[in-house]
Amino acid sequence: MQSNEQLLALIENHLAQIEFAAEPELLYAPIGYSLAGGGKRLRPMLTLLGCSLFTDEVQRALPAASAVEVFHNFTLLHDDIMDNAAVRRGKPSVYAKWGQNVAILSGDAMLICAYRLLGEVPPQLLPHILRTFNTMALEVCEGQQYDMDFEQRQKVSVVEYMHMIELKTSALLAGATVIGALLGGASEEDCRKLRRFAVELGLAFQLQDDLLDSYGDQRLGKAIGGDILEGKKTYLMITAMSRAEESARDVLRNAYRDPMLTDAEKIAAVKAIYDRYDIPRLTEQQISLRFERALGILETLSVDPARLEPMREYARGLMGRNK
Amino acid sequence: MQSNEQLLALIENHLAQIEFAAEPELLYAPIGYSLAGGGKRLRPMLTLLGCSLFTDEVQRALPAASAVEVFHNFTLLHDDIMDNAAVRRGKPSVYAKWGQNVAILSGDAMLICAYRLLGEVPPQLLPHILRTFNTMALEVCEGQQYDMDFEQRQKVSVVEYMHMIELKTSALLAGATVIGALLGGASEEDCRKLRRFAVELGLAFQLQDDLLDSYGDQRLGKAIGGDILEGKKTYLMITAMSRAEESARDVLRNAYRDPMLTDAEKIAAVKAIYDRYDIPRLTEQQISLRFERALGILETLSVDPARLEPMREYARGLMGRNK
Repeated sequence: MQSNEQLLALIENHLAQIEFAAEPELLYAPIGYSLAGGGKRLRPMLTLLGCSLFTDEVQRALPAASAVEVFHNFTLLHDDIMDNAAVRRGKPSVYAKWGQNVAILSGDAMLICAYRLLGEVPPQLLPHILRTFNTMALEVCEGQQYDMDFEQRQKVSVVEYMHMIELKTSALLAGATVIGALLGGASEEDCRKLRRFAVELGLAFQLQDDLLDSYGDQRLGKAIGGDILEGKKTYLMITAMSRAEESARDVLRNAYRDPMLTDAEKIAAVKAIYDRYDIPRLTEQQISLRFERALGILETLSVDPARLEPMREYARGLMGRNK
Repeated sequence: MQSNEQLLALIENHLAQIEFAAEPELLYAPIGYSLAGGGKRLRPMLTLLGCSLFTDEVQRALPAASAVEVFHNFTLLHDDIMDNAAVRRGKPSVYAKWGQNVAILSGDAMLICAYRLLGEVPPQLLPHILRTFNTMALEVCEGQQYDMDFEQRQKVSVVEYMHMIELKTSALLAGATVIGALLGGASEEDCRKLRRFAVELGLAFQLQDDLLDSYGDQRLGKAIGGDILEGKKTYLMITAMSRAEESARDVLRNAYRDPMLTDAEKIAAVKAIYDRYDIPRLTEQQISLRFERALGILETLSVDPARLEPMREYARGLMGRNK
């Protein structure tokens, strides 16, 4: 069995070898730029790891793994237009670098390229894998729309928020994992379990992302408080809104747009309320619950327990729990 | 064999029965709105007619026909953002009605829905049909990018223009026809011929569209001169630029943005030059050449000549040459 580092190398290598036409340049250059931009390659890793649960021949999952990564990068490209985001992974976004029209159209071409890669799976598996991919892709769009809807709304419940990230984040992780499993020869039953595994992992991952944005992570050295300054409805914000008394809710609602406060003061004001209502610990609890549930589901797969270790190790590493 | 009116009714019926989720509303309502907006249904008609060349069981081509129509409407949705177009088929465009972000995201969902419909073709044909569809879809994006590139350029040759519309217009007609033929059981050889047939038909169709925009069509009662007022590089404009002397070229280049001229004067100035250089007749000639070539290719298919008539009749009707 290959190590997770070897799997990552396989993915980088496969992505680098995808052939795109050279012309028209404004259509294809942004695709190469976007795919060369790095990132964790989380989703294609899940495809290969999903496959490796059932077979050592993970190479066969590479085109689908790349399809999933190309799809993910397509969503980032269009999301950056909708969010008016100028920076992506420390570099100018395609939207900022080439403008809106190029970002729309090269994003479209990228989505089509994802389907072209998907077309390389073994023919007998194509109908099932295409169906899984389509469902996943539509769910991601639904999640993005709910996310935008929520920006316009006064009140969002925790249940609504969890449903939104289940679509926007977990669906892609679940699709990526299940497609890998299908290519490895998994049974329907194991595919269903892996879907639930990846959904829980995705929820844990997204909540951790929300937590780190406000409370930081030494490993990342990322600027802290971006979500607070944007007034984003994160898990922390929504949970705090549901637990705080009215005067505190007023601060949560308005601090980010208070012209009398500096950025540091806005962040401090919101975090003081988070701390008062124990939001970081509640979030940690929810993350652990989801993560442990994910690992528990993994144990129930009908495979030799030794095959589970790479997926478990990868999931732990993703959550910063590898020690 | 069904009449062309019956084929159109089959398409409308199938399109109306596609199931889209209700929520999130801003994602799915624009898709229904867009598909209910009418249009000729040219592309799905070519899919059914392509199928009917080889079998009477055209029903089997309905999901693919709808996939092609949904794809076409997806391109219109995104094109309207890129072209800043407020009106589509006499109604507000999705972009104008719901705004840019909704148009981007529901367009993306529409493209995915097209693939979902495509997934309904018989499994043994799916790999081939998916490949054909992907190539077609990428070509349409390439054509749209070249079209936008040309807007920024001073000079575009007739050859470059024909290549652009072969991608932007003909590729979709060719893909639609060939996919229908594949579903009808056509040989590779007949598929190749039908591709060439549809490419020529698409070129004739696009040049006729260019001609009618400046010289009108009693049937449509459409406002005349839109392309001229936008300074668009149409077949007429490009051909005129290649034939006219410098003083006339100067008018062609600048009339549309001359603040001293009314719209009617701008149109009259440009058309006077078109007429002086015989551009309408040259365009007509090119249209006839392409159209006759398309019909000629049809004759060479290895099918009972009686099966050709519905496709021939439809193509003639499309070009207003049914008498």
